[in-house]
Amino acid sequence: MGKSVAQKLIESHLVEGRMEAGEEIGLKIDQTLTQDATGTLVMLEFEALGVPRVRTELSAQYVDHNLLQEDFKNPDDHLFLRSACKKFGLWFSRPGNGVSHPVHMERFGIPGKTLLGSDSHTCAAGSLGMLAIGAGGLEVTMAMAGEPFHLRMPKIWGVRLTGRLPDWVSAKDVILEMLRRHGVDGGLGKIVEYYGPGLDHLTAMDRHVIANMGAELGATTTVFPADDAVRTFLTTQGRGDAWREMLADPDARYDEHDEIDLSQLEPLIALPSSPGHVVPVSEVAGREIYQSYIGSSANPGLRDFAVAAAIVDGKQVHDRVSFDVNPTSRQILENMVELGILKKLIHAGARLHQAGCGGCIGMGQAPASGRISLRTVPRNFPGRSGTKEDQVYLCSPETAAASALTGVITDPRTLDMPYPRFREPRTLLINTEMLVPPAPQDAGVELEMGPNIQPLPALDPLPEKLEGPVLLKVADNISTDEILPAGAKVLPFRSNIPEISKFVFNPVDESYYERAMASRQQGSFIVGGVNYGQGSSREHAALAPRYLGLRAVIAKSFARIHRQNLSNFGILPLTLVDAEDWEKIAQGDVISIPDVRQVLRQGDRVEVINRTRDERYVTEHRLSRRQVEMVLAGSLINLVRERVTATTGEGF
Amino acid sequence: MGKSVAQKLIESHLVEGRMEAGEEIGLKIDQTLTQDATGTLVMLEFEALGVPRVRTELSAQYVDHNLLQEDFKNPDDHLFLRSACKKFGLWFSRPGNGVSHPVHMERFGIPGKTLLGSDSHTCAAGSLGMLAIGAGGLEVTMAMAGEPFHLRMPKIWGVRLTGRLPDWVSAKDVILEMLRRHGVDGGLGKIVEYYGPGLDHLTAMDRHVIANMGAELGATTTVFPADDAVRTFLTTQGRGDAWREMLADPDARYDEHDEIDLSQLEPLIALPSSPGHVVPVSEVAGREIYQSYIGSSANPGLRDFAVAAAIVDGKQVHDRVSFDVNPTSRQILENMVELGILKKLIHAGARLHQAGCGGCIGMGQAPASGRISLRTVPRNFPGRSGTKEDQVYLCSPETAAASALTGVITDPRTLDMPYPRFREPRTLLINTEMLVPPAPQDAGVELEMGPNIQPLPALDPLPEKLEGPVLLKVADNISTDEILPAGAKVLPFRSNIPEISKFVFNPVDESYYERAMASRQQGSFIVGGVNYGQGSSREHAALAPRYLGLRAVIAKSFARIHRQNLSNFGILPLTLVDAEDWEKIAQGDVISIPDVRQVLRQGDRVEVINRTRDERYVTEHRLSRRQVEMVLAGSLINLVRERVTATTGEGF
Repeated sequence: MGKSVAQKLIESHLVEGRMEAGEEIGLKIDQTLTQDATGTLVMLEFEALGVPRVRTELSAQYVDHNLLQEDFKNPDDHLFLRSACKKFGLWFSRPGNGVSHPVHMERFGIPGKTLLGSDSHTCAAGSLGMLAIGAGGLEVTMAMAGEPFHLRMPKIWGVRLTGRLPDWVSAKDVILEMLRRHGVDGGLGKIVEYYGPGLDHLTAMDRHVIANMGAELGATTTVFPADDAVRTFLTTQGRGDAWREMLADPDARYDEHDEIDLSQLEPLIALPSSPGHVVPVSEVAGREIYQSYIGSSANPGLRDFAVAAAIVDGKQVHDRVSFDVNPTSRQILENMVELGILKKLIHAGARLHQAGCGGCIGMGQAPASGRISLRTVPRNFPGRSGTKEDQVYLCSPETAAASALTGVITDPRTLDMPYPRFREPRTLLINTEMLVPPAPQDAGVELEMGPNIQPLPALDPLPEKLEGPVLLKVADNISTDEILPAGAKVLPFRSNIPEISKFVFNPVDESYYERAMASRQQGSFIVGGVNYGQGSSREHAALAPRYLGLRAVIAKSFARIHRQNLSNFGILPLTLVDAEDWEKIAQGDVISIPDVRQVLRQGDRVEVINRTRDERYVTEHRLSRRQVEMVLAGSLINLVRERVTATTGEGF
Repeated sequence: MGKSVAQKLIESHLVEGRMEAGEEIGLKIDQTLTQDATGTLVMLEFEALGVPRVRTELSAQYVDHNLLQEDFKNPDDHLFLRSACKKFGLWFSRPGNGVSHPVHMERFGIPGKTLLGSDSHTCAAGSLGMLAIGAGGLEVTMAMAGEPFHLRMPKIWGVRLTGRLPDWVSAKDVILEMLRRHGVDGGLGKIVEYYGPGLDHLTAMDRHVIANMGAELGATTTVFPADDAVRTFLTTQGRGDAWREMLADPDARYDEHDEIDLSQLEPLIALPSSPGHVVPVSEVAGREIYQSYIGSSANPGLRDFAVAAAIVDGKQVHDRVSFDVNPTSRQILENMVELGILKKLIHAGARLHQAGCGGCIGMGQAPASGRISLRTVPRNFPGRSGTKEDQVYLCSPETAAASALTGVITDPRTLDMPYPRFREPRTLLINTEMLVPPAPQDAGVELEMGPNIQPLPALDPLPEKLEGPVLLKVADNISTDEILPAGAKVLPFRSNIPEISKFVFNPVDESYYERAMASRQQGSFIVGGVNYGQGSSREHAALAPRYLGLRAVIAKSFARIHRQNLSNFGILPLTLVDAEDWEKIAQGDVISIPDVRQVLRQGDRVEVINRTRDERYVTEHRLSRRQVEMVLAGSLINLVRERVTATTGEGF
């Protein structure tokens, strides 16, 4: 039976499990990608792990998120990451060098390899025929240490492309069509694989646009074949020798099917505030806009800027419109200068920003109150722009540039001009100067840790007996935003666990931090309702409470990712077998689990004693053997460190 | 007797007073300049004044400070300013168009004219032979309404320049030499006027560098003659017809004298954290740097970027150094592209930022903890960069670029290369597209006021009798930072007096706001010590307490500018004749001044009754007749509005 590209990629990296949808598999990871907003914690975790150097083929750390530098914290983080890269053997992409995803694709992507990244848009590298997956920071830390990455085997969803895109319609409209059809959860548990004759007219960077926003479908990742378009791309980037062909077999079988005739597409737009609210641009044409925003990892290519520049060339943007241009990398910026693209954009009224993620992740460029912002970015979740109740629409560079000129949402087909089709030059200016290679292993590099950067706290193993107070009892659907809020006040402390811990449960109970510090040595419990820990995947929502002494959460049920995070950081997630027991426990009750280490190893059932009320409740831990060992060790980090030390001795 | 340029400028605009040093004079103002950080309040004040259109020859509003847009507040302010400009008849320089001072010089500056600006570096336009003075927002509001600007006649300080700058020494080193000689208060009460043969080799933009940082000398302003260099500049800007010659008479007399032989200068640098701590670069060479920063109104010219680019051309900045390039205007950015300057900078490792004030006013680009930042900006006050205990050094673009390459403070003369002398091209790209002209008077423009923008509160006239509690009693040297703090938390509310009032006296007494709101209708008092209101000139430190009901401050003495601000906003500044009386008054005492309106008009002496203790204290108001009228009217705005209404009728 023929194989798809996705199957070939998985098969060639499979180290554990069977390739049957839903089975847990372990994959060897060839490359990792981290960015600065998640990377500082990854480096602290990696340091705590005690592995001296990364064991991947290549690991790269990018600084693209926190570029604004309003005080010492962000620049301190940059210097810390620089030193960590030198010490641990990663490439360091300096602040201002650009967004991780296009830079990684241009400089490091290799067809046939796996890439794990602590950023949800890591999947963009699927455009080169890589298996590229976004994950939590600790998973990436483990991959850097040479550990396999575990996931449930996804279904492979084949999407056949036919025809050719009409004038004024581009790659962004393809992924918007997928989102129009399938919504933001259409890709859950699946790898999207594009194939078919329609690929012939999509460049590798066009495919990057489609693969990047595969994250918005909820897909595990997206893959494209490594065909001639990929060869052309790599050759233009001066890396033709990295190319190897990887195509789906002609008789490849897919678990699910879809087909798009590219010639039938029209300019599309996602309405506020979900990438899944997609309609034709013509349906909302005429609405007055405040902002037109070009750039981000969802439209990072030179052609995206070139086409926008050609549209505004010799004209002026509407005097109400903030026309924000965000070059995605220093290399692209240089080529924009060289090819006359930048000059056209600036002369037409562009506000030119530093190469990086910028406004896409709410770092500046927030729109005015109640005004419409048109963006080529991947996401328009409520408030992500920095403005509460924002009105962000997602569209192609063609639509954004056309609307910048008119001041209202404009279907670019209605512009009175021929479509400026861009042909990428055969040779580009290549810029590798801001990519700092790892220092030699014996260079004696010291980590540079500014006052806001604190080492990962030691996480002691699970004691023989757990006994301590219920510090907090909460109701159903407590989110990670309530456990540990985000926002400008809290985010700068992401590399400082003692400091960020002061915000734990702040929105729910401001006294939590003080009370937790008082019982920190003894250890404490939380009692939760249904779906405890829903929402974002942030690791800090497990690590910071753990730092404050939390040893177990007793709840009616858990959100999937947070449950994983709890066990990763050595917190026992206990599910009440009888949900009615939730009523019986009160905040302040003293809970005890004698012989807890032995109990966990014996089976799924854990009896919990309420010393205050002299009651007993039956719970289940529902952990795999691997996860039980994590909790016993005090954290996944401890577990891997133990194994590493046992295998190779302390000094490696 | 011959006249200096400064005397000619003053004489031609004198509408009140005599030109004798120390005498109060009134000057007709031809042009005004406002920027966004001060301009929103100016527009609110202008609206409250009720004058429909500006009465200057030209007024221009720039958006160059608050460009980061982390939420809706800054973009709302931009839209508000845009609408206010259209309505009131100002030019609007759009966000991203550049820093006010160089843009104003390029597009609007006219030799022989007066310019009043709500920015301390307004004096930069002295480079064109203008009389350009920085002032508080309300003074600029009044100038926009056609009122004369009042100041004490300054002394004229003639500085004769001879010789020619050596290689690697540029205009920045001239003003640093002035600061080395005279310190940050050497110019107090003076206008610095440069003359002599040394001028022949200084372009108008070189002179801008020197005039701009005249503010750091504490000077009222700086003037240069309008000579051939000015003609060349205006011609290159396509405005040759704006030129008129204005030279000092050969026998001009100056009140004070100094002389600089330019050929004897060497590269200089101001150490942290004062522009007055100047030493030769060679004295501190070798210190490791984190940042090299090019741009700002102190080194805004194309030549400043061109020379830096030539120095780094074909090389790479040190991998520890953040090389931050801040184009000062969109026009300069376009010319940087056109002349190949930008490409060299980017390729060498520059982080390119949006045209504007940027890091110079702490809007991003803050340095890392304890690391050295080299900047071409005008000021290095402690913490201004955004990083507490920062280490900011001020220097020329030559020194900054040389140090960016080596990673340590470097005397540019030690570089192994010929000095890249830059000759400005005869014709430049001119960019006026982001300068929006005023709308016609009858265009029916509505002010666009987002939810954070509140009209200026009504300030009622002084009642016949003042009676109310002493809400706060403070000790000596209370600064405006304690009265109303700055910083990222408070600044976004600068166009929202009700909201910013919540922070009044926060650092001193957190209960002030609540207590003040309770007694707001009745009115209240503050008792202060020596030098009450020292520090910055911010108007909010008078307006916000006034909004909270403050009617009089009884103190041992007042800081000069704050005292002016108090009377501008209708608060009575009363000086205790017997400082011992301060001891007798307690917080909470009820103070009374019967027949206060009559008392103020009768003379300087004001008797204050302490109803709680049944005591009487003698105070003096020390206000001019003009100032008494302001306080009686409730504010300078009310006073002028009354006069305006009386003169021309309500509808104008």
